[in-house]
Amino acid sequence: MLPFQTLIPLQRNCPVPLHLQIANGLISHIKKGVLAPGSRLPGTRSLSVLLSVHRKTAVAAFDELTAQGWIETVPSRGTFVIRHLAESSPSPLTGADKQPLPAVQPGYHVHKNVHLHIPVYLNRGELAFNDGTPDERLAPVEALSRNYRSILRRSTSRNLLTYGDTRGNPWLRAELSAYLSQTRGLQTTPDNILITRGSQMGLYLVSQVLIAPADVVVVGETNYWVADAGFRQAGARLVRVPVDGHGIVVDEIEEICRTRPVRAVFVTPHHHHPTTVTLRADRRVRLLQLAVQYGFAIVEDDYDYDFHYQSSPIMPLASADVHGMVVYVGSLSKAIAPAIRVGYIAGPTELINELGYLRRIIDRQGDPVLEQAVAELFREGEIRRHMKKALKAYHQRRDYLCGLLQTRLPHAVEFRVPDGGMALWARFDPSLPLAALSEKAARKGLYLSSGSIYDPAGKCPNATRMGFAAMNPEELERATAVLAAVLR
Amino acid sequence: MLPFQTLIPLQRNCPVPLHLQIANGLISHIKKGVLAPGSRLPGTRSLSVLLSVHRKTAVAAFDELTAQGWIETVPSRGTFVIRHLAESSPSPLTGADKQPLPAVQPGYHVHKNVHLHIPVYLNRGELAFNDGTPDERLAPVEALSRNYRSILRRSTSRNLLTYGDTRGNPWLRAELSAYLSQTRGLQTTPDNILITRGSQMGLYLVSQVLIAPADVVVVGETNYWVADAGFRQAGARLVRVPVDGHGIVVDEIEEICRTRPVRAVFVTPHHHHPTTVTLRADRRVRLLQLAVQYGFAIVEDDYDYDFHYQSSPIMPLASADVHGMVVYVGSLSKAIAPAIRVGYIAGPTELINELGYLRRIIDRQGDPVLEQAVAELFREGEIRRHMKKALKAYHQRRDYLCGLLQTRLPHAVEFRVPDGGMALWARFDPSLPLAALSEKAARKGLYLSSGSIYDPAGKCPNATRMGFAAMNPEELERATAVLAAVLR
Repeated sequence: MLPFQTLIPLQRNCPVPLHLQIANGLISHIKKGVLAPGSRLPGTRSLSVLLSVHRKTAVAAFDELTAQGWIETVPSRGTFVIRHLAESSPSPLTGADKQPLPAVQPGYHVHKNVHLHIPVYLNRGELAFNDGTPDERLAPVEALSRNYRSILRRSTSRNLLTYGDTRGNPWLRAELSAYLSQTRGLQTTPDNILITRGSQMGLYLVSQVLIAPADVVVVGETNYWVADAGFRQAGARLVRVPVDGHGIVVDEIEEICRTRPVRAVFVTPHHHHPTTVTLRADRRVRLLQLAVQYGFAIVEDDYDYDFHYQSSPIMPLASADVHGMVVYVGSLSKAIAPAIRVGYIAGPTELINELGYLRRIIDRQGDPVLEQAVAELFREGEIRRHMKKALKAYHQRRDYLCGLLQTRLPHAVEFRVPDGGMALWARFDPSLPLAALSEKAARKGLYLSSGSIYDPAGKCPNATRMGFAAMNPEELERATAVLAAVLR
Repeated sequence: MLPFQTLIPLQRNCPVPLHLQIANGLISHIKKGVLAPGSRLPGTRSLSVLLSVHRKTAVAAFDELTAQGWIETVPSRGTFVIRHLAESSPSPLTGADKQPLPAVQPGYHVHKNVHLHIPVYLNRGELAFNDGTPDERLAPVEALSRNYRSILRRSTSRNLLTYGDTRGNPWLRAELSAYLSQTRGLQTTPDNILITRGSQMGLYLVSQVLIAPADVVVVGETNYWVADAGFRQAGARLVRVPVDGHGIVVDEIEEICRTRPVRAVFVTPHHHHPTTVTLRADRRVRLLQLAVQYGFAIVEDDYDYDFHYQSSPIMPLASADVHGMVVYVGSLSKAIAPAIRVGYIAGPTELINELGYLRRIIDRQGDPVLEQAVAELFREGEIRRHMKKALKAYHQRRDYLCGLLQTRLPHAVEFRVPDGGMALWARFDPSLPLAALSEKAARKGLYLSSGSIYDPAGKCPNATRMGFAAMNPEELERATAVLAAVLR
C-alpha cells in the first residue's frame, strides 16, 4: 500500500474540513499519476487508522470523491480509482516536473550480446507440427499436485521452504542416481548429479563453466539451435562437422583435433536434433577414445532417451565413460510436462560442485518443493507408469502420422520413420519451398516450421521437424488435411 | 528400464535351458556392474514379454537367481539386485576393459571462471542469526498449495503446462504491474515486467545484458556480495564508493563519472545491504539526475521494500524515473518463502525483451503453474493479508532482539535499530574478534557470520548482519543467551 500518511498531510487547525483535505489530497495524487487509474484504495476503516481520523471522516471523503467521479466502489471487491481519467501530471516525489510513463526505450546503452533473437513467445494455436514436444494433456498432474500439496502441508517439510542446496533436492538426486543406473547403466552417486531447470539450463551451466572465449566447440552441421546459442553465449567458436545417417561423423572430429585444441564436442546420440538419426555404436566408442586422447569434454544431451519405440536402444556414452570425459545432460520435462522445468546434469563431482557455484549466482537454487514432489513420483513408481502410458501413445501417434503422410502426401514429403523421440525429419520436395508452405499453413491455423532454424549453415535442405507427440490421431488427421490443402 | 532384450541374447536351439540362459545373462550383467547393487529388476511378467519367453520361464530364472543369492524379492515392492556383492567388473557396452566408476575429477579442463566460491550448501542448524531471511514457518502454504492444485486440476489450465512466454505468466505480470503501482508508485504495463526466479536471477540477467567485459559498475564500499559476484561474472570492473549513514555517497559517483564512463550504478536504497541504512531522498534525486547526465543505468535492488516498520517509507527511484534510467529488481521470495523463487524486473520494454531472449537460453522460462498460483494469491488479497501478518511478527522480533542486545550485551555490540528489513547491522567491540566468536558460537549450535562476506574491501569493521525475522522470541532469547555465554 502507498504511504498515505506521508502523502496526505492533514492540517488539523485549518478551516478546510478534514474530509475535504483528504479528498483533495487524493485527487492531487490521482492527477499526478501517483494513484494510477484502476488502482485499489484502502478501505475507509484502514484509511481512518492510517490518517488518524474518525471513520466517518474517511467515509465522507470517499463520498466526495465518488460524487466528483474520481473513484468507484465495486461491491465486495473494494474501492478503485476510475479507469478513464482525462489528464495526469508529474509525480511529486523528486520535485521533477514530469511524470514517469511506462518506458519503452532505456535511457542507457544495452549491451546486446544475446546470441539468439527468437521471438519471446510463439503462440502456435491448436494445430502444430511443433519441434517435438510432449502432450501436456497426458501429464500426471493428479499425482504431481497431490504430492505437492501433501509436502507443503507436512510440518516436517517446512525446511524445504527455506534456502537449500544449490545442487538440488537431495532426495531427487538420490532417486535420479538410481534411475540412471537402472535405465541406462550410468554409474553415479548423488554427488555426481545436479538438478537443473530442464535440460536447457543444463546446457547453459555446462557451457559457462567449460568454455572460455574463443574455445572451439564441435557440433553437428545441423544441430540443436538453442544449444548452439548457449555455446556462443559462452564465447565458443563453433566448428561444424557433417551428420550422416549414422550420426555425427566422428572421423572428421579427429581431423579437427589434429589441427587445433578442441574444448568440447556436443552430441545428441540417441536421436540427433534435428534429423533424429542415432549415433552408431562404433562411432560412440571411437568418440570416447578421441576424448581421452585429445582431452576434450563430450557434452551428451540425451533429452529423449526415455522415448524409444524400437526394441534395442543403445546406452548413452556416459554409461561407458571410464575416464570422466562425458557430461551427461537430461530432462524430466519431456517425461512430465514442458512447463515442469526439472532436468539434471550427471558428471564428475568436481564439475558438479563448480556448476553449483555458478548456479548460486544465476538463480540461487531450484524449487525444492517441486523437486521433492518429483522425487516422490519416482519413489511411488508413478513416473514409470506415466512414461509407459505416454510411450504407447507417442508410438501410436508416430505410426499414425507416418501412415497419413505416406497415403495423403506421398510425393511431397520424404522421411525415415524415427526410432524414437517426438518428431520426424521431413524433407519436402524442392518444388514446394517450406517458407511459403509454412506461411500458407499458418493462415489456415496450422503451425509448421519453415525449417530455417534447423539450418545454421544455410544449406537450405527444404526440410523441417514435424512433431507428432502433442497431437492425438484426430488432430494429426486434421493437421495433415490442412497440409494437403496447402500443397494442392 | 535397461534394454534387456539386447542385453540377454537367448539361443533358442542351445542345450542350456532358457531360464538358465536368462539367469546367467543377468548374473553376468550384475557382475559387470551394468545392473547395480540395489537396482530394481522388471517383474517376471514384463521380463517374459521383453524376452518373448513364457512367464514360467522368467519365474524359474528369478528362482535360480534368488537361490544363488544374486537377487531378492521384497513383497509388494519388487525384485532387486542384492546390495552387497563381492565383486563387479567391466561394462560390456564399448568393449572397453574397465567399468566406469562414479567420477570425481573430470578428464578435461574446467574453465574455473565462477566469481563466487561459496560452499554449495550451508546447513545452519536450528539457531541462526542469518543474513536476514524470512521465517518459512509463516509462509502461506495452505493458500499456495490450494491454488497450485486447483490450477493443475482445471482442464482450462492445461495450456500452462506447455511452453510459455519467457517473460513470465501474463496474469502474474498484470497483477504485479498493478501491485507495483499501488504500493510504490511505479508506472508500468505488463510489458515492462519480466518474472524471474527470485531477485538473484533478476540481478544475473540484468548484469549479463547491461555489462560488457571491462565496463565500470559502481557499487557501495560495502555491498551485497552476491550482487558483486554477478557483476564480476559479467566481466565488470567494480568501483567502490563509500556508504555512510544516509546511504551511498552520490557526490563520489559524480567524481567517478567525470573521469571515466560508468555503465551502471547498483543501489539498494530502501535498506542498504549489509548496513541497512536508507538512501536519503535528496541523494535519490541527485542520483537520477546523474544517470541522465552521464547515461548510466541505475540498478535498483528493492528486495525488501515491503518490510518497513516506520510510518513513512520512501518510494523507489523507479517511481520517479522519467527518462527510463532505472532497472527495478524485486522479489516475492521474502514475502512468501525463500524457496518460492519468484521475483521480477521492471524496466523499459526494450530491455525486458532483451532479457527475455537471454532467459530463453538460460532456463527457457519460469514455472507457469507456480506463477499462476502466486497471481491468484495477489488477486485474492492473500499476499497482502500474509504480508501484514508477517510484517507484524518481524516488527516484534526486531524490537525483541534489539531489547535483548541492549539489556544482555550492552557493551559488546553496537547497532542502530533498522527502519525495516530482516536483519540489523551489529558492530562488535574490537576486543572481541568476530571470526573467533563465530567459531565458538557454531560449537554451541548458533550460526553467526564472521562478517567477512560483508567486507569486500578488507577493512575489517568487526561487524556482521544479525537476522531476526526467522526466529521467534523464544528462539531469539536462546540465541542471545548462547552469544552471551560465548562472549563471557
